[in-house]
Amino acid sequence: MAEPLPSTTPAPMEGRGGYNRASAVQEHGASPALPLFRAAAEAVPLAESPAAIVIADYGASEGRNSLEPIRTAIAALRARTGAGRAITVVHTDLPGNDFAALFAVLAGDPNSYLRGDPAIFPMVVGRSFYGQILPPASVTLGWSAWAVQWLSRVPAPIPDQLQVAYSKDSAVRAAYAAQADADWRAFLSARAAELRPGGRLVIVTMACDAEGDFGYRACLDAMYAGVGSCMTAGLITTAEAARMAIPTVGRSLDEFLAPFSGGAFDGLTVEGAEIFLAEDDIWRRFGSDGDAAAFGARWMAFSRASVFPTLAQVIEGPDAEARRASFVARLGDKMAAELAARPEPTKIPLARMTLVKTG
Amino acid sequence: MAEPLPSTTPAPMEGRGGYNRASAVQEHGASPALPLFRAAAEAVPLAESPAAIVIADYGASEGRNSLEPIRTAIAALRARTGAGRAITVVHTDLPGNDFAALFAVLAGDPNSYLRGDPAIFPMVVGRSFYGQILPPASVTLGWSAWAVQWLSRVPAPIPDQLQVAYSKDSAVRAAYAAQADADWRAFLSARAAELRPGGRLVIVTMACDAEGDFGYRACLDAMYAGVGSCMTAGLITTAEAARMAIPTVGRSLDEFLAPFSGGAFDGLTVEGAEIFLAEDDIWRRFGSDGDAAAFGARWMAFSRASVFPTLAQVIEGPDAEARRASFVARLGDKMAAELAARPEPTKIPLARMTLVKTG
Repeated sequence: MAEPLPSTTPAPMEGRGGYNRASAVQEHGASPALPLFRAAAEAVPLAESPAAIVIADYGASEGRNSLEPIRTAIAALRARTGAGRAITVVHTDLPGNDFAALFAVLAGDPNSYLRGDPAIFPMVVGRSFYGQILPPASVTLGWSAWAVQWLSRVPAPIPDQLQVAYSKDSAVRAAYAAQADADWRAFLSARAAELRPGGRLVIVTMACDAEGDFGYRACLDAMYAGVGSCMTAGLITTAEAARMAIPTVGRSLDEFLAPFSGGAFDGLTVEGAEIFLAEDDIWRRFGSDGDAAAFGARWMAFSRASVFPTLAQVIEGPDAEARRASFVARLGDKMAAELAARPEPTKIPLARMTLVKTG
Repeated sequence: MAEPLPSTTPAPMEGRGGYNRASAVQEHGASPALPLFRAAAEAVPLAESPAAIVIADYGASEGRNSLEPIRTAIAALRARTGAGRAITVVHTDLPGNDFAALFAVLAGDPNSYLRGDPAIFPMVVGRSFYGQILPPASVTLGWSAWAVQWLSRVPAPIPDQLQVAYSKDSAVRAAYAAQADADWRAFLSARAAELRPGGRLVIVTMACDAEGDFGYRACLDAMYAGVGSCMTAGLITTAEAARMAIPTVGRSLDEFLAPFSGGAFDGLTVEGAEIFLAEDDIWRRFGSDGDAAAFGARWMAFSRASVFPTLAQVIEGPDAEARRASFVARLGDKMAAELAARPEPTKIPLARMTLVKTG
């Protein structure tokens, strides 16, 4: 297969535990989907023993945020199977993801789902989930949190922002919408192939609310200003700044449901889907501690762990490593300072849904 | 589970592709086991379709040396199943292994076994193979090359060498022999649990020949002298040098067969096992190019990619990262120079064997 240019596809989350240390926003945002995952684990048909029950976790990064959902599913399954029935947990992410950090979490985290249950077998797959990456009809339960908002590629540069939701360029917006539709269908087709008959897939991901609002406005404005500041300071070239884009999308409920307009899509049906606003825990903490610097630092850390690697990989050349480090440091400082100067609540629109593979 | 001290367990192979670039010795050494693996793939009973056929690769490091054996097995299986039958390939190694390098090889190497066959599904497991790490009775074919010579832990410091085979301390030799026996039985028990009835496991690993010779004499003497030189130069402390040990063993044929003295061990039987001497390709190349510096550099690179990380992790403290880098650089220089000064052939005793899980 042809290797795409690194700067046209998203980068993995920040390595060396960076994502695990700075993904509390994602953890909070996913928690309203846990009851869906528990219900799916209670309802899903199980293969005959002794075949292992397979749980897939699509877009796991370094695994810390996967512990609670996987524990939830295992608890529901154990209530049905008793101890001893083999359960395989397959965490997937991009090839360059820090899987060593993930295995360290599984071995050492006090909340690891491996504790006290020797019949759980974790594995990982480092391949894009926009293709089929697990055997046909092998997955009983799927979980995907904060992952499918990432497009498979950057469809176009964004001339007036880092995030297409705030671009006024209608051609660019159309290019992202088309990519978002194609990627969503590719994701669904691949999962439809992997799920067993009756298998369930629970998804929580970025979305647009009923007003079409993607959210994160102050955070994204501060990031865009920070990139401009790095350019002005000569840390990055104008061409590099122009190529920096965040290939994430917030789909509307209609966009999520579009492939299902005829009922099933590749054998998948929608059991339930809704848009909701996640609790803004960073704002809540600011309300209680009044610490503006901590407020700015928290949104900066969220951005650095998830988005900065994709921006920084645009920087190339012989001194790329050093320039990327300088860029990340300055962008972070500028962003944190800007956000600390004007703390405000952040809208966090998410979608949660349960899909079922028909028998 | 309790986290062992890092310096008492082996480190993963050199990361960032280092092992893939400097493991030609292992590649050559494993090739005489390929016919065994092909024969195993031709003979092994297969599960009913559509369940995926599982091939496990125990101790894969960064994957380059796994491509040829896995391709060999897949070709033999495809001759039996035709195209389309799902085959899962599970590569295992220590949690800290560079799995990103492995997935990059699978995606990009021209010899990747993924090329041209969309029904192959690679996964990895980052857990020690001295425990059960795959579901019971799930593995059809197992492969393990240059891996099970690594003990699960350093049983004792070695006062007069880095490698116990050349130590004159009988108590230390006994401690390593006891650990080697316990680890071999633990490895076999875990694989016995994972293999399907009739499943085959092909192993190629370091061994002692009939004269009790472990081999690699000049390489190990140069390495031991190099560590001494790093100590004299003040790069490492005396205490650190004393704690440096390579926890690998070359078992004799009798030691490999000991668990099977009563016939089967945990349901595993020996279909064939022998000690052989691998072709010394580095000596062959020296014979053809007469380049003593290249000769020294090749054995040094072999050692750096496989053994140096385990030695270097003994170095701790606030400046550990910088001191480890200096240690690796000087040790490499000293070793390469010493070997280049006196090129000689290297004995490479290996064992190859096929084990079968009884039905």
